[in-house]
Amino acid sequence: MTVKAAMAEAAEAVLEVMDRLLPIPDGPEARVVEAMRYSSLGSGKRFRPFLVLESARLFAVNRACALRVGAAVEFLHSYSLIHDDLPAMDDSDLRRGRPSCHKQFDEATAVLAGDALLTYAFEVLANEATHADPRVRAELVLALARASGTQGMVGGQMIDLLAEQQSEFDHAHVTRLQRMKTAELICFSCEAGAILGKGGPAARYALRSYGQEMGLAFQIADDLLDIEGDSAETGKPTGLDAAAGKATLVAVQGVESARAHASMLVEQAARHLDFFDEKADLLKSVARFVIDRRS
Amino acid sequence: MTVKAAMAEAAEAVLEVMDRLLPIPDGPEARVVEAMRYSSLGSGKRFRPFLVLESARLFAVNRACALRVGAAVEFLHSYSLIHDDLPAMDDSDLRRGRPSCHKQFDEATAVLAGDALLTYAFEVLANEATHADPRVRAELVLALARASGTQGMVGGQMIDLLAEQQSEFDHAHVTRLQRMKTAELICFSCEAGAILGKGGPAARYALRSYGQEMGLAFQIADDLLDIEGDSAETGKPTGLDAAAGKATLVAVQGVESARAHASMLVEQAARHLDFFDEKADLLKSVARFVIDRRS
Repeated sequence: MTVKAAMAEAAEAVLEVMDRLLPIPDGPEARVVEAMRYSSLGSGKRFRPFLVLESARLFAVNRACALRVGAAVEFLHSYSLIHDDLPAMDDSDLRRGRPSCHKQFDEATAVLAGDALLTYAFEVLANEATHADPRVRAELVLALARASGTQGMVGGQMIDLLAEQQSEFDHAHVTRLQRMKTAELICFSCEAGAILGKGGPAARYALRSYGQEMGLAFQIADDLLDIEGDSAETGKPTGLDAAAGKATLVAVQGVESARAHASMLVEQAARHLDFFDEKADLLKSVARFVIDRRS
Repeated sequence: MTVKAAMAEAAEAVLEVMDRLLPIPDGPEARVVEAMRYSSLGSGKRFRPFLVLESARLFAVNRACALRVGAAVEFLHSYSLIHDDLPAMDDSDLRRGRPSCHKQFDEATAVLAGDALLTYAFEVLANEATHADPRVRAELVLALARASGTQGMVGGQMIDLLAEQQSEFDHAHVTRLQRMKTAELICFSCEAGAILGKGGPAARYALRSYGQEMGLAFQIADDLLDIEGDSAETGKPTGLDAAAGKATLVAVQGVESARAHASMLVEQAARHLDFFDEKADLLKSVARFVIDRRS
């Protein structure tokens, strides 16, 4: 199966689970659930859930369990997009070719929908249905919280916002920012399979390392798309990050050097998976796919 | 010991734990941690942590464990205040007599500080240091997530915002709103002791019921303070909720009837604690204290 076909299949399966996990309640609070559904169930590559599913497959984890973890990661990812798009943050009116959450609903509902998606990600992980062993559930919660907190996504977003006010940033600074903002959650998605499958330290380390290098490559690819992409394909206006003076590796290194850097990261990432032999071939191809994508 | 003295002692102990749990990191992300500290470590009654400590005492739970859960609840409570104060939500410039988080820092930092406090609450609960048994940790995460999500705090806040646009609301509607917005988290705080101490279903039910009645009484007392309180004592401008047309039980019932309602709820709440004999005497007095407070 091609990477593209495998990703499409995984995206459909996880979407079904997410849809089931977000029933619309009876009361007026339905509005916030509608906003959660609007922002999380729309189009999207479901890249992070795909990583969860593929890493879980290495340990023959029950697919229903892996799908729930994939849904949780996607809920968390959706929360971050909603809050990032807010006027006080990146002030984006468009997301995946549609009005962003605060444009479609309103700002208060968008703040709450993000809060609720973040909260719900942890609720889904902690629920018995995700894994029979409570130790696994607690470990998943802990790892996801660390990937999302001040030393992960939130910390990265904070540095990103501060960087906009700076005129110069060095390579190490931007790499740290991107690791925190983007790579940590991708890293968690890869490690999740090992947590679910109770893999040993070596397996966990291999998947974490793969996720870290690939997460950084993923971000560089995103930044290249912002500069070179076609907004009809990417579903968002291009050139915005560059105009906002965002601290990207492309801004620091230049286009050609950044592209070469991403290629090198992808090769390094794939090498970490040698640990799993040919079972991990699809994951290896994913890393390459990530930097070749057009959207 | 008087309720007041016991609460002051608990507040000091939980503040120390919260302070230790929020070290300022080296990088520029320190700003978001400073905002988290500003909003969570300032003055405050630490009412929810007190309930955790007192309910945990009924089961002779290790105090260090209970203090961590208390800290987690207070982090979560602080997140809700930061986001509620945002311009798009209640637009409050003052909180506990000081500038609210987005006034002291900026709106983006306030959104992120709230997100990080919410995330961190789950991280603290899922950490091994909170309880040796992973089942207890997973259960705490699940219960807190439920109390905070669309069927708890977030859902309540959504209904509250929508209610501002309505001119009439009935008693059942407002009671449901307040239960979700305020009582669920208070309920969790009471139940947490039973989760930590692996209390049986009857004990859990008793504490949940106590928390539910008392949480509602707590909210009525808050609404009465908004109308009758002295802003120098409460640390926030009074009369604002009434002016904003907030859906409170005081608005629906009138001051006298609401006061009588709160008294009745407090008595009902205390009765649920008969299950624990005199061990729960302090918790019983707390319920009374809650509606007699001046701030």
